[in-house]
Amino acid sequence: MYKTLKVELKNRITTITLNRPDVLNAFNTQMLEELLLTLDQADNDDEVRVIVITGEGRAFCAGADLSAGDGAFEGDNIQTEEARDTGGILSLKLYQMRKPIIAAINGAAVGVGITMTLPMDIRIISNDAKIGFVFTRRGIGPEACSGWFLPKIVGIAKASEWVLTGRMITPSEALDHGLVHGVVHKEDVLTKAYEIASEIVRNTSAVSVAFSRQLLWNMVGENDPRKSHLLESEFLHWAGSRADAKEGVQSFLEKRAPHFSLSVTKDMPSFFDD
Amino acid sequence: MYKTLKVELKNRITTITLNRPDVLNAFNTQMLEELLLTLDQADNDDEVRVIVITGEGRAFCAGADLSAGDGAFEGDNIQTEEARDTGGILSLKLYQMRKPIIAAINGAAVGVGITMTLPMDIRIISNDAKIGFVFTRRGIGPEACSGWFLPKIVGIAKASEWVLTGRMITPSEALDHGLVHGVVHKEDVLTKAYEIASEIVRNTSAVSVAFSRQLLWNMVGENDPRKSHLLESEFLHWAGSRADAKEGVQSFLEKRAPHFSLSVTKDMPSFFDD
Amino acid sequence: MYKTLKVELKNRITTITLNRPDVLNAFNTQMLEELLLTLDQADNDDEVRVIVITGEGRAFCAGADLSAGDGAFEGDNIQTEEARDTGGILSLKLYQMRKPIIAAINGAAVGVGITMTLPMDIRIISNDAKIGFVFTRRGIGPEACSGWFLPKIVGIAKASEWVLTGRMITPSEALDHGLVHGVVHKEDVLTKAYEIASEIVRNTSAVSVAFSRQLLWNMVGENDPRKSHLLESEFLHWAGSRADAKEGVQSFLEKRAPHFSLSVTKDMPSFFDD
Repeated sequence: MYKTLKVELKNRITTITLNRPDVLNAFNTQMLEELLLTLDQADNDDEVRVIVITGEGRAFCAGADLSAGDGAFEGDNIQTEEARDTGGILSLKLYQMRKPIIAAINGAAVGVGITMTLPMDIRIISNDAKIGFVFTRRGIGPEACSGWFLPKIVGIAKASEWVLTGRMITPSEALDHGLVHGVVHKEDVLTKAYEIASEIVRNTSAVSVAFSRQLLWNMVGENDPRKSHLLESEFLHWAGSRADAKEGVQSFLEKRAPHFSLSVTKDMPSFFDD
Repeated sequence: MYKTLKVELKNRITTITLNRPDVLNAFNTQMLEELLLTLDQADNDDEVRVIVITGEGRAFCAGADLSAGDGAFEGDNIQTEEARDTGGILSLKLYQMRKPIIAAINGAAVGVGITMTLPMDIRIISNDAKIGFVFTRRGIGPEACSGWFLPKIVGIAKASEWVLTGRMITPSEALDHGLVHGVVHKEDVLTKAYEIASEIVRNTSAVSVAFSRQLLWNMVGENDPRKSHLLESEFLHWAGSRADAKEGVQSFLEKRAPHFSLSVTKDMPSFFDD
Repeated sequence: MYKTLKVELKNRITTITLNRPDVLNAFNTQMLEELLLTLDQADNDDEVRVIVITGEGRAFCAGADLSAGDGAFEGDNIQTEEARDTGGILSLKLYQMRKPIIAAINGAAVGVGITMTLPMDIRIISNDAKIGFVFTRRGIGPEACSGWFLPKIVGIAKASEWVLTGRMITPSEALDHGLVHGVVHKEDVLTKAYEIASEIVRNTSAVSVAFSRQLLWNMVGENDPRKSHLLESEFLHWAGSRADAKEGVQSFLEKRAPHFSLSVTKDMPSFFDD
């Protein structure tokens, strides 16, 4: 069905594998369209609790497809004034998702290969992977909304240095500055991602996770804490009397694993404008 | 006077001790009301320069009081649509304070037990304390404005991972990610908090501290640096010709401790809308 | 020509040296005016790719000039209600620059001596340098827009602790919390700054760097990622078909150093309101 992806649902975890290994999973318009489609399906399927995104072969994603040579950045995606950066369209979709997304960065993640992971929630990286925000070395600019996401993840000082020099970054440096959550051997990247995903599946309420994810992304650049107070109060009013809150307290008091039943698609109202 | 707190003023430091040790200082409506009252008094008493908040017994605060069982989140505080999360009411009060607040986290700080400390300025924690943003494991959502505060303290990447998994966090991990300022032995938590508090009492101007605290909290999510420039200029214009600035320079030039005299309640105009 | 500065352009790097070594390069109105002038010239000279700012003698900048004694903060700069903090005027100029600015902090950086470096992009510091946000100890408040910049660099928790205590900070602590990018021996501070500056000169496109710098500073406090998406799309549309993007891809595919030709002053439209 997909030409640029492999998609598998197992144990309530959807794994999306970028699947153009012969070109180091270079990002192109078709990959964008297939990602938007499969993300939309996963977000609307209550069976899916967590999404893991990884790459086939030795790279995660080596960046935009440069096979058009020196016209690579004149493609369909950006030729009219109304046109929008394809990486940014993907990032905004990831930003609005109601499921946790874990990047299992199995190898090189350069340009849009790393910036597409910024709206994901957790990044696990191979200890031999190269990372680079290389835009200034290619004569273009930050993409995939990384101008917004990167400073919110690593702070403005590190974001500026990485972007203005365009230099390569080691996994260990990425860990030190909070860009990634874990550095492991190449063969352990997916295992570690599934370990975290399973912990979420086993222990958490889907509606609680959906609300929390949207709340955090909506509040990270907000100036007024009262906005958070109103949203949190609305959700607490809604959730407090429902099955998951009862089961959450009951299972805690009985020291057993919880069995949450609420559905994100059927039970939960929208708390956000997006 | 207080049923859920002990309050003591000594050496210009008010210590507020959460005092329901038999239920691990679980947070309830009465504790909220007593906290609002005592914080208000401390903020309006020039004798008080710093506030230290700690817990009686082995925990700091184990979270919301769950003694109502599976109806715990259906309480008075949140039963009507207009109702507001009690933790958030406390956080907004702490946010607006004009005195530095130091959390002396002597033991477990879970749920609202940790989120109520986020609007405090400095967190010292016992090396055996458990921390957890456990909302997704209880079927509810973030509280106490933590959707706003947490990403501003530890960055969005760590905030997301901690909240979406709901897992327990060690003091050492909290230190690595800047959630706490110091990890010490249980018996040294208060000592360390008083050490920092005393340094503030001895060396700083109360009006300078009040303005600085409000400025930082108002600017952390602000988009435009010109706003900070205007506020800083207004304060510098006000403070520059007054007694504390003269004493600040004079004591510095004479290499002696300063004796500041300005009063937050009597001398200082309001520089902020809140 | 300058009374408080030395300015030299070499290898496409402008070095600005604060040059009042007899008073530890204390900041005064004349230094502000000369800095504004030389920064403006550097920003409008395509020959200049990077700016390095350092101090003559043993200090970087010991803060505001206190030679007026206890009237030091009643100077020309702040005596009328309309007057503006001089440090803030400098910070806003630095914020709007289109060139990367590297602070080579060769010694003590206290008060405005450290806050003036916050809108710079990269800070390298001598391992014997003292740093202090000492405002609360002088009876004044944060200056140079540091209320806005500091929390965005080190997070609100560390910013609060440093500002509310007013205590001195070691270079090693500054590194741990991301305030500085590198700590080196005093004699290596400029060498390290030039090493990074040269890497930018050799490898990056001037228009890419100018856009990226302005994008990051404009987005760091922004709430909506769509704003970044629109700005990034506009720049990608503009840059994608131009010489630097073609050369960026071509030199990458040919594994050679790039030769970028676009001019910031002649070719590049304004993408920002400032």
